[in-house]
Amino acid sequence: MLNKSVMNFIGCDAGYEEADIVLYGAPFDSTTSFRPGTRFAGQAVRNDSYGLETYSPYQDRDLEDCRIFDLGDLELAIGDSELVLSEIEKTAETILKDKKLPFMIGGEHLVTLGAVRAAARQYPELHIIHLDAHTDLREDYLGVKLSHAAVIRLCWDILGDGRIHQFGIRSGEKSEFDWARSGHTDFHPFTLDDLPGILPELKGKPVYFTVDLDVLDPSVFPGTGTPEPGGVDFLTLMKNVTEVCNSLNIIGCDVNELCPPCDHSGMSTAVACKIIREMLLALKK
Amino acid sequence: MLNKSVMNFIGCDAGYEEADIVLYGAPFDSTTSFRPGTRFAGQAVRNDSYGLETYSPYQDRDLEDCRIFDLGDLELAIGDSELVLSEIEKTAETILKDKKLPFMIGGEHLVTLGAVRAAARQYPELHIIHLDAHTDLREDYLGVKLSHAAVIRLCWDILGDGRIHQFGIRSGEKSEFDWARSGHTDFHPFTLDDLPGILPELKGKPVYFTVDLDVLDPSVFPGTGTPEPGGVDFLTLMKNVTEVCNSLNIIGCDVNELCPPCDHSGMSTAVACKIIREMLLALKK
Amino acid sequence: MLNKSVMNFIGCDAGYEEADIVLYGAPFDSTTSFRPGTRFAGQAVRNDSYGLETYSPYQDRDLEDCRIFDLGDLELAIGDSELVLSEIEKTAETILKDKKLPFMIGGEHLVTLGAVRAAARQYPELHIIHLDAHTDLREDYLGVKLSHAAVIRLCWDILGDGRIHQFGIRSGEKSEFDWARSGHTDFHPFTLDDLPGILPELKGKPVYFTVDLDVLDPSVFPGTGTPEPGGVDFLTLMKNVTEVCNSLNIIGCDVNELCPPCDHSGMSTAVACKIIREMLLALKK
Amino acid sequence: MLNKSVMNFIGCDAGYEEADIVLYGAPFDSTTSFRPGTRFAGQAVRNDSYGLETYSPYQDRDLEDCRIFDLGDLELAIGDSELVLSEIEKTAETILKDKKLPFMIGGEHLVTLGAVRAAARQYPELHIIHLDAHTDLREDYLGVKLSHAAVIRLCWDILGDGRIHQFGIRSGEKSEFDWARSGHTDFHPFTLDDLPGILPELKGKPVYFTVDLDVLDPSVFPGTGTPEPGGVDFLTLMKNVTEVCNSLNIIGCDVNELCPPCDHSGMSTAVACKIIREMLLALKK
Amino acid sequence: MLNKSVMNFIGCDAGYEEADIVLYGAPFDSTTSFRPGTRFAGQAVRNDSYGLETYSPYQDRDLEDCRIFDLGDLELAIGDSELVLSEIEKTAETILKDKKLPFMIGGEHLVTLGAVRAAARQYPELHIIHLDAHTDLREDYLGVKLSHAAVIRLCWDILGDGRIHQFGIRSGEKSEFDWARSGHTDFHPFTLDDLPGILPELKGKPVYFTVDLDVLDPSVFPGTGTPEPGGVDFLTLMKNVTEVCNSLNIIGCDVNELCPPCDHSGMSTAVACKIIREMLLALKK
Amino acid sequence: MLNKSVMNFIGCDAGYEEADIVLYGAPFDSTTSFRPGTRFAGQAVRNDSYGLETYSPYQDRDLEDCRIFDLGDLELAIGDSELVLSEIEKTAETILKDKKLPFMIGGEHLVTLGAVRAAARQYPELHIIHLDAHTDLREDYLGVKLSHAAVIRLCWDILGDGRIHQFGIRSGEKSEFDWARSGHTDFHPFTLDDLPGILPELKGKPVYFTVDLDVLDPSVFPGTGTPEPGGVDFLTLMKNVTEVCNSLNIIGCDVNELCPPCDHSGMSTAVACKIIREMLLALKK
Repeated sequence: MLNKSVMNFIGCDAGYEEADIVLYGAPFDSTTSFRPGTRFAGQAVRNDSYGLETYSPYQDRDLEDCRIFDLGDLELAIGDSELVLSEIEKTAETILKDKKLPFMIGGEHLVTLGAVRAAARQYPELHIIHLDAHTDLREDYLGVKLSHAAVIRLCWDILGDGRIHQFGIRSGEKSEFDWARSGHTDFHPFTLDDLPGILPELKGKPVYFTVDLDVLDPSVFPGTGTPEPGGVDFLTLMKNVTEVCNSLNIIGCDVNELCPPCDHSGMSTAVACKIIREMLLALKK
Repeated sequence: MLNKSVMNFIGCDAGYEEADIVLYGAPFDSTTSFRPGTRFAGQAVRNDSYGLETYSPYQDRDLEDCRIFDLGDLELAIGDSELVLSEIEKTAETILKDKKLPFMIGGEHLVTLGAVRAAARQYPELHIIHLDAHTDLREDYLGVKLSHAAVIRLCWDILGDGRIHQFGIRSGEKSEFDWARSGHTDFHPFTLDDLPGILPELKGKPVYFTVDLDVLDPSVFPGTGTPEPGGVDFLTLMKNVTEVCNSLNIIGCDVNELCPPCDHSGMSTAVACKIIREMLLALKK
Repeated sequence: MLNKSVMNFIGCDAGYEEADIVLYGAPFDSTTSFRPGTRFAGQAVRNDSYGLETYSPYQDRDLEDCRIFDLGDLELAIGDSELVLSEIEKTAETILKDKKLPFMIGGEHLVTLGAVRAAARQYPELHIIHLDAHTDLREDYLGVKLSHAAVIRLCWDILGDGRIHQFGIRSGEKSEFDWARSGHTDFHPFTLDDLPGILPELKGKPVYFTVDLDVLDPSVFPGTGTPEPGGVDFLTLMKNVTEVCNSLNIIGCDVNELCPPCDHSGMSTAVACKIIREMLLALKK
Repeated sequence: MLNKSVMNFIGCDAGYEEADIVLYGAPFDSTTSFRPGTRFAGQAVRNDSYGLETYSPYQDRDLEDCRIFDLGDLELAIGDSELVLSEIEKTAETILKDKKLPFMIGGEHLVTLGAVRAAARQYPELHIIHLDAHTDLREDYLGVKLSHAAVIRLCWDILGDGRIHQFGIRSGEKSEFDWARSGHTDFHPFTLDDLPGILPELKGKPVYFTVDLDVLDPSVFPGTGTPEPGGVDFLTLMKNVTEVCNSLNIIGCDVNELCPPCDHSGMSTAVACKIIREMLLALKK
Repeated sequence: MLNKSVMNFIGCDAGYEEADIVLYGAPFDSTTSFRPGTRFAGQAVRNDSYGLETYSPYQDRDLEDCRIFDLGDLELAIGDSELVLSEIEKTAETILKDKKLPFMIGGEHLVTLGAVRAAARQYPELHIIHLDAHTDLREDYLGVKLSHAAVIRLCWDILGDGRIHQFGIRSGEKSEFDWARSGHTDFHPFTLDDLPGILPELKGKPVYFTVDLDVLDPSVFPGTGTPEPGGVDFLTLMKNVTEVCNSLNIIGCDVNELCPPCDHSGMSTAVACKIIREMLLALKK
Repeated sequence: MLNKSVMNFIGCDAGYEEADIVLYGAPFDSTTSFRPGTRFAGQAVRNDSYGLETYSPYQDRDLEDCRIFDLGDLELAIGDSELVLSEIEKTAETILKDKKLPFMIGGEHLVTLGAVRAAARQYPELHIIHLDAHTDLREDYLGVKLSHAAVIRLCWDILGDGRIHQFGIRSGEKSEFDWARSGHTDFHPFTLDDLPGILPELKGKPVYFTVDLDVLDPSVFPGTGTPEPGGVDFLTLMKNVTEVCNSLNIIGCDVNELCPPCDHSGMSTAVACKIIREMLLALKK
């Protein structure tokens, strides 16, 4: 008898029961305002992770020593945002109830809302660390409330002032910058320089960590729907996400906005793979 | 003083008031189930139409002798299908009330529903001629009712049995084929061979004509989200759309499912441009 | 508890035990002389099969009524042809011994040799039907004996004269054409026109069926390492492979030489998916 | 000592002195009105010719039995059309004086004018056979007289009425079609069907043969600056160019308008290579 | 009645009369020596500017508070450099006479000569600040005087020694470097480090500012015809162009050498858009 | 009579006899484990070198003052690693015996083994400086000993401990890092910072210099089969290779792992060209 060869993210071949972390893809991009295609990220990341090794010389850790279940991609109802969000929410809720860490691969950034809904119900004291090029603080986008451009504002609707910590942002409407700066979020635009400084105060608190990969400069990460020049470099991002995952009580996270058809060279997918690997390794307790 | 150089589809530079035909783009692809990108079709077609001439040696007619207004692309709320459809419906309604012919460039096929809603209100006896590779007759797609895969079924909800004439279809679920064949639509799968035969019976009746360009074989038209091999060739399609537009009372029409980022060679956009030109010329009375 | 979402070729979700057909990928292209990349075919075909339906209106059959196990891609030792061939041979042998039909997705054409070795041992009276643009009858290629350009010659070494039936071939060295025409193979170059004519004589005999997709014209199938203009069209190939699978005793088969990175439009992968679906449906007894 | 490995078109490794045919590239595209890039054709054709064989099973001839010198690409002054044309003219003149056949690989179609100037001086009774999608009969293009869109009109300026035989044309301005039809050229639009019919009357006369590859349908040949759907298929073109080269007194020829960067799949370059091979073989006396 | 939806660079929707700045495209690339395609820059920049916001958090300014007229692309005679230059010159002259600032989007770098001719006539004391990877100081290129590789030399012919300030240059012939260094230009190769230092001395003088975007490193800006590794990063360029536009009396400017077909990822177009936005905002008085 | 226009790397047009350096391509990629295509590097580098100048303003040296013979690409037996290695070995041996420096353009990294075999026979005291993202120290890769992933280990088999100096490495299996660190190689992972420090001790000794271009960050060099984020930038690499070539007794070298089809923008090829130019200039004594 022959066994099926199944594709997981490299080194993530634990079963659900034994796993500490559950990796899952959320292939959704219906509200993307510019170039769609992030729906293909989960599959691309799984495919190209085999260009990586399981071992990280940066952390001297190996995925083979972790227990991670790769659920694969959810089957989502492209075209109906509310249906999609509730599907994600249900999945995240199950994982959280089973005392595991949900690690989502977007999709567009709106998918974060589904996971945050589940996380905030479980952890009412939830904080969010948000790395991004864009504010994502609109009240709506051309009349659409459930939009990638509004996702952090929608998280704020749940969590309120002082809970969301934003870094690296360099694009948005004037009103969004003003709103953030007026104290609704803990706002650190342009770079990640301030990120290490806030880690002490978040120590021990439940934190959801959402990484929009377009926080990177397009030279490093061209494969995204709305490239925004002037971002951070790879080693800076890698160091920071490692530090966050290492030192805080991360109860859920996501990495989103990789758009594989926007970058035929594959380097953007390689960047996403390596960021995910380093996060997975740093999350290991 | 210098005047703005404005880009229209080649030769379509009439003003709205004087125009017989109003060309407009509907840049929407949120329910696309496979590869998105049809939102970019309107702009691509306008750009690349300058690779064409205004003169057609096939019909010995010239766009310079027509009165066509190119409205440009509508500004649509990516991510909210109902909002988008009502925006399209409103546009089509205005054009129809002004006794002009609305000619829409999709976007995904769902956009047809907006235009058909307006057309069916104005012309309750409306017929639809539908060229496509796919049945588009689902009741829903993963629970989503407003889906490109359901658009013709949604038109049938408005018009009922016997009003929709389908040609070229070669893909769908068994239940869709059975439903069509049980008489709900006038169903002629695989080729356009039967199309000339139905023209006499439709003579003079108000007809909405919707052309999903994936009715073409992917060798001719690879630039579409879901290429389906085994389709018709270019000259066959060109001859048939010309004949339909020439001989029937077309009161509205659309050409959809061109996905420019799916074909870097540009040949699919060239095909769309030429089909649109021939239709525009044939619609001239 | 959450279950892993596993990707198979659409509709091929039977278990190994219950299956009649075993689909497996052979991701190998080390001897490709021009543009490599066929190693990615198995994964691409599995991904893009979801742009298809499980139902074929041509045959009025549905993959959901078949029992097919998709093994996934074999893990092959890129760079060592003999190791790779023996891995394929072992897999095919197991499947054949379990009275199932091995259906391989290449990879370059050399992979056929592994499967034919297993098949010929089980069925010494084996015949091969070979569709291709190229003769593949070299004795070696720049001194390399195990080469895609020699694969049919290597099969002939096992089976001898009169057992190999070649169709559609339009490229090769003069000496290869001469060798074929001198009676070593049953040689029908340029088209598939003669294929129906040989089916009666092969009735009931064990036949291995190998389809090099470059038998298609590059307009239909640009995504291959060595496109050779002047090939057959899609419907002709589809009709012929369906007929072969329907009417003969096919004991093993393969579809090879899809090179996904050679065609960004995805139409070549769509063509491969549809040919595979039609073959799978026609093989159902 | 080690010898340089030099790249020629496959099988074209004769020295200049012994050669019957001189192949040379004219990498120029400065007047291209839509998508430039034909300047890369010569190099691409030389590279990709190794995906072909030297042997043609259609003609049962082999390039290894021919004496063809591949000069490589001329070094042309991109940006100055008159300088470029005189460089081409000088090259063609030398080849013609040495009683060899100049076979040019464009470049855009304007390059033909250089070769025709030289040919017409040597053969005042020269005829031209012109295969193309476009009339190329403008008097100027936006005020530019030396334009690819005017090249055949410029040849007519040299040769006058009745000497130019045009086939396959399906695009142009109304005035160009009218001018051609009024008897200035021997005009056979849309197909190559009439081409065999004119061969008898041209028997023995000196003929320059210019093949704009966009006469092919874009499904076969997407890699060109201005794809024009509705063209001829590959086998039709191959048969006709073979027949022309076989039966007439061709004293010079060119194949132009391949734009390699317009087609990443490489199939257009493969088509160009095979047309060139068949022409070279048919020209062998 | 329905109004045409017209595409401008984001936020640049003033009328000509009221505008302070006139943006216009110069789609010309006939003398490009390596990979052509800059002719498509104007249209690409207009399209992709919608991935930006009108607000700059760097300058805390908003395009909605500026008065900029986007003229669109000029219609230029591809293939005749002198005709093209005089067309550009005429346009720039009209804008300058109307006391507005002409802001040109190339095209290849040769287009600068047209604008500089007009500017130098209006401002005989004109200085030029030139950012580039290449010297552009040839006397001719393969015998062609009007060449992108000679454009700054041609400007020098008008302005003479000491008026041209060059930064970032890292490629050229030895003779060009020697000529520049001998005092003909104010020459600061390799970086922009010296740029702030020259601003005081140029204060108040009329300055034409020409930015060849290939001054950027190809990692930031791969979409250019002749990528030259070793350039400056995005933030450095952004800071410097902002400073120049803010502190000097810029009377005309251009941004050139974006070649959209050279970068399918779109990041180069995004970079161009953002540089243009920051320059437009900084030019606002 | 007309002379053939032959393509060399820019400025490398010396004859073999007079040359100090022999440049040759090794178009082999059969053991590439992820994305193949490095076989096309030699030709791409030769083509695109014309986007460079022969003059380096960094070193103030000019290729026109060097004597370099460009042999072209070797004709290698794709698919048989041992055959390929011995072909490379023979070539390198001839060049070394003729007292010239063999400069190889890969191909995948395995090709280095051929050249090192020849060099080590000639220079038993040979040292290797190895720049790379990957350790390349596996004992085998899926059972294949002759693998790009094992090439440095295979060199160590010849040279033993203390002779191989590795820099920039940031990916590998834990066991490879442990093996290197245990003293088998002189191991300096992550950066090139330690490279200048070892130059004094290597002064005068025979050194083979192998540069795997993926030591660069993928933002600079996306065109490689296995992009590994976190690498060095262009100027750092350029400075270091120049210093190595300038100050040491380099007796052979190679630049490998450029995969042109992995980067349509061409910037990776430009990077390779410039690194090669700077090395050639620095090697000039």
